[in-house]
This record gives sequence, structure tokens and C-alpha cells, in this order.
Amino acid sequence: MKIAVLGLGAVGRGILETIGKKNTGLLVTGVADSKSACIQHDGVDVRSVLSAKKQTGICGDPTLTADDVVTRASYDLLVEVTPTDAVSGEPAYGYMKKALMRGAHVVTSNKGPIALYYNELTTLAKQNNVQIRFEATVAGAIPIIHAMQHDLSGNTITALYGVLNGTCNYILTRMAEEGLSYKQALSEARELGYAEADPTYDVKGIDAGIKLVILANTIWGKSISLDDVEITGIDLLTDDALRLAEHQESTIRLIGEIVPDKDLFRISPRIIPKNHPLVVKGSLNAITIYTDMAGELTFIGKGAGSIETASAILGDILYIRNEQCME
Amino acid sequence: MKIAVLGLGAVGRGILETIGKKNTGLLVTGVADSKSACIQHDGVDVRSVLSAKKQTGICGDPTLTADDVVTRASYDLLVEVTPTDAVSGEPAYGYMKKALMRGAHVVTSNKGPIALYYNELTTLAKQNNVQIRFEATVAGAIPIIHAMQHDLSGNTITALYGVLNGTCNYILTRMAEEGLSYKQALSEARELGYAEADPTYDVKGIDAGIKLVILANTIWGKSISLDDVEITGIDLLTDDALRLAEHQESTIRLIGEIVPDKDLFRISPRIIPKNHPLVVKGSLNAITIYTDMAGELTFIGKGAGSIETASAILGDILYIRNEQCME
Repeated sequence: MKIAVLGLGAVGRGILETIGKKNTGLLVTGVADSKSACIQHDGVDVRSVLSAKKQTGICGDPTLTADDVVTRASYDLLVEVTPTDAVSGEPAYGYMKKALMRGAHVVTSNKGPIALYYNELTTLAKQNNVQIRFEATVAGAIPIIHAMQHDLSGNTITALYGVLNGTCNYILTRMAEEGLSYKQALSEARELGYAEADPTYDVKGIDAGIKLVILANTIWGKSISLDDVEITGIDLLTDDALRLAEHQESTIRLIGEIVPDKDLFRISPRIIPKNHPLVVKGSLNAITIYTDMAGELTFIGKGAGSIETASAILGDILYIRNEQCME
Repeated sequence: MKIAVLGLGAVGRGILETIGKKNTGLLVTGVADSKSACIQHDGVDVRSVLSAKKQTGICGDPTLTADDVVTRASYDLLVEVTPTDAVSGEPAYGYMKKALMRGAHVVTSNKGPIALYYNELTTLAKQNNVQIRFEATVAGAIPIIHAMQHDLSGNTITALYGVLNGTCNYILTRMAEEGLSYKQALSEARELGYAEADPTYDVKGIDAGIKLVILANTIWGKSISLDDVEITGIDLLTDDALRLAEHQESTIRLIGEIVPDKDLFRISPRIIPKNHPLVVKGSLNAITIYTDMAGELTFIGKGAGSIETASAILGDILYIRNEQCME
């Protein structure tokens, strides 16, 4: 199977490194970063591309662009891992549409286009008899979308509760365990690289809210946007609130909730008993789903990280390839 | 898709009830219990069969047998949920072989034949271009086999640790939380139906050991038997050992371990910190896997129960049907 990769940040490089190391049977015919691209119909040398990127900061020919890869490279599947834009979804949305219209599958970690245009993208995919998959957009390495779409086939999923943002979880863990103030914990998270210089997106619950939108629209067929999610972040949480929870053998976590039958979509700090499976430590993610047959199931794992995200991307690529083989 | 169901214990009834209630598109053409069977090429009336079973104790014609269903009914997939025999695997093993040789898929919750004859059964399945699936044999409703076989494709799974027996976990939870002795907790588990009249199979770790054999042979391609698993049960555990663990903010759980590279297969009571994800309460199951890309992932859910097992069976049936549709 021939693939093209757009985006050579940590995730894109993680995918190429994996393909370089493992015997996946995938041929990379196009790669683009924000300043250059390379296209080789008989396969690019993945190690040379990574080495060029490391030494020069660009992966290929500066006269070529990501759009050239999308329109001119020869590929069966486009891996779209460029930076996300939660407002417009661009330029990723445009790349995805072009790839689908060319009859190529799309696998992405890009939350913007999936949260904004899932219905349009799946319609386009169906029209062209290809697939679009997005396991990496929610909960990083945890295969929660595969589990709900495939493994639990036959079940009705009646509710979902999840710790969907590792930055917030890290901050809350440190506040509870070390008695740090919100500001101290945030500053520590920044120093350790768990939080961005501008942490608004994470601490105000927007990132977790976008993930709820993706889950609501893809798993339950809703058509909601971020405006439909009731969001309270952790930025106004006081140390006192946490101490009070701790006194009751409980703690506080930023929880995303979906109750599809009630059209309830909410992100909020919740008091939870310490021995509850959702009370995970540090930057972990955790999701509990309620089902009509399988009962309550909890999935815990790393919600971010380049190699963890590459794992989710690779899982989607190989899923599509296995389906193709059977056709 | 036409299916035949062998075994009308709680799991078999759960499957028929689900098919009767949900719009699964499955046509049941044969059903057998231990004393009777019914065969209808154009589909049996699932509700009548269940009602007959409830009222008379048998599901159909007492002159017909499970073997008649296997050899004479018209089906694409055999659901084999008769009682397990861990020593011979019979009669289930014989039914499965006949079904595979007829070119039918097999889905089972029957641990005996999978633990004893997985290699023979998959070879036979491949020769006949069909599949054999067995999600329900390990950890009940938790889709751990799907996750390792499909969702995490591309990952190397380097180790597995799991709470694989709900009876033992219930007993250990009650001993730790209520200060009960092993005998008291066992007797309570019996009264509540969590333990059999003869609990040997569970408390001596044999049930968990068989599940390790299944995982080792199916996920890592080993060819081990129960003799290759180092097994220590919970039956000789003293209240003192548990109290000592509790004093150190830890507790004891019966843990199954697989480290495939070291050929390590072990069931033993282990001291674990109370906040570890594997420390689940009551009759729950939990599995942590270590992977090269996705990191550490934990799955928690119900390890037993008729409807939970039916969920795993249905997941396997629908997985096979979806693959067929794409052919």
C-alpha cells in the first residue's frame, strides 16, 4: 500500500520512523512539511528524509508543497498530521477533501476537520468508496474509537465519561498530591513540556470539548459543534475545593460526559472517589463507557505523545489495508 | 447470515434473547441443548425456542442432537457455547472441527478446545477459508483479544498482566475490605453465586491459567499447555498476608503474567499498590498490556455473566459478518 504523509512534526516523524524500522509493507511515496516536500512514485527513502529534516529543518524540495503531494503524488492513503486549526479546519480539511476525491483513504490525528466536517468528509469518502479514520484524535494511544465502532458491535453505548486532556489531569494530580496551587502546578507542567506556553486551549476545557464533539458526531451520529458542549475548565478551580475533596477520600478530575439520549455533552471538573477507575495519575487519559450488554468498561492509557499518536495512526492504516486485502 | 447455536445455558440463552430483541440481521437455523435440538432451514422462531426451553427444560425435538445440528443444519457460522471440558475439549472440539470442515465459521466461549487445540483449529479454518474467533474465552465482556489482534496492529505487545478470574478477585476484595477470612469470603461468594459449589478450578488458579494458555497461543503464537504455566492459587493465602499488604497501602490480587520473550507464564497472588489500575473491586477483571508504541494500556470490565459473554460472542459474529460483506 502506498501512503503519503503530510506534516513532519513529532507525530509525522514518529510514523516515518516506525515505517523505517518495522516491516509494515507500506511504501511512502510523498512527504511534506510546512516548507518543502518530496514526491517519489517508487518510494522515498524514509531514513534520508528524516535525516534531511533533522539536519536542515526541511524534508525535501522547497519548491514543492503539501498541496503538490496531495494532488500529484501516487498514493492509496493520505496520512494527515499537520497542525490542527480548530476554527477553520484548514489547510487540513482541503487536503483531505482532495485526497478523498482522488479515491484515496485518509487517516488523521487532526481534530479540527473531524470536529467541524465529519459528516461532509464521510459522505465524500463513501462516494469515492474509501475510508476516513481518526483514532488518534481522541485519547491518543487508547483504541477507544476502534473499540466502540468494531469490538463492541451489537452493543448500544448509553453513556461515556472520560479524562480526555492530559495537561489538565497532570495539573490536578500535582495539586492534589503535592498541595501545589493551580499556578504552581501549571508552571511545573509548562517546564516539563506537558503544557503549552499558552495553555488556554487545555485548561479552559476546549481541547476536551472538541474531543467530545468528535465522539458525539462519529459514534452517535450527532451533528453538534463546540457551542453545544457545556464547558467549565480547571482554570478557576481553587486549592480549597481540591483540599475539601481530598478530605472525603475523593479528588477532582476534568471529566467529559456524553449521554446521547439526553443530548448531554459536558466538560467540567467533577469530584470523584479516589478509587474510581477514572482517577488516573499524571498525564494519562481514561474513558469509561456504559453499554447495554458488556456493562461498564474502562480504558486507560497515554493520551498524547508522538509515538503513542503514531501507534493510533498505524492502527488505522493497517485496519484499512486489511479490509482492502479482503476485497 | 445464518447461524446455529450449540448450548442453551445462560450464555446461549443470552445470545438468542439478544438476536430476538435487536435487529442484527442474523437468522438462527439450528439450536441444540444437551437433550434436544431444532433445525429449520428458513429460520427457527427464537422466542418460541426460548419459551419452550423455559417451560419444558428442552428446546426442541428430543430425537435430535447437537451433532445433528452441526452436520445437518444450514448455517454460515456455528456459535459453540456448550459447557467446557478442560481436559479433552470434547464434545465441543468435535463440533468445531465438523463445522469448520463444512466451511462454516466458528465463534465460541469454550475455553477447553481453544486452550488445547488452537493450532489445529486455525489450520482447519484456514484450509476451509473461514475464521474461528474466541473473544469470550478471556475476560468476558472486555474486548482484549480484538484490541491486541486488530486495534493495536503495528504494536509489539511485550508483556501482559491481568486479573483474569472474578471469583478470586471477589474473595480477595472481601478479605481486604471486610477483614473476612478466606473461608468466610469463599462461603459468601458461593452464596452470591460468584463461586461454584466446587471452587477448586477458580481458587487454585486453574481457570486463570487456562486463559493465559489461550492468550499465549493465540496472541504470541506459542504452543504451550497448562503444564507450562507456573500456578499458585489463592487457597493457601492467609489473612495475615493480606493484612500485612494493607498496612503498606497495598493489597493482594491473583495476577496472570505473560512475558513472551522470556517464555514466562505465571499465575500467582501478588502484592500491588492500592492505586494501581489492576486493583479492581469485586468480580471485575482487568488487563494491563505493555506495548512498544502505545505504551501501557489497561482495560477494565466484567469478566463473566451471561449477557456480558453474549456481548463478546456477538462482537465476534458481527466482525466476521462485516469481513464477509467486504469480500
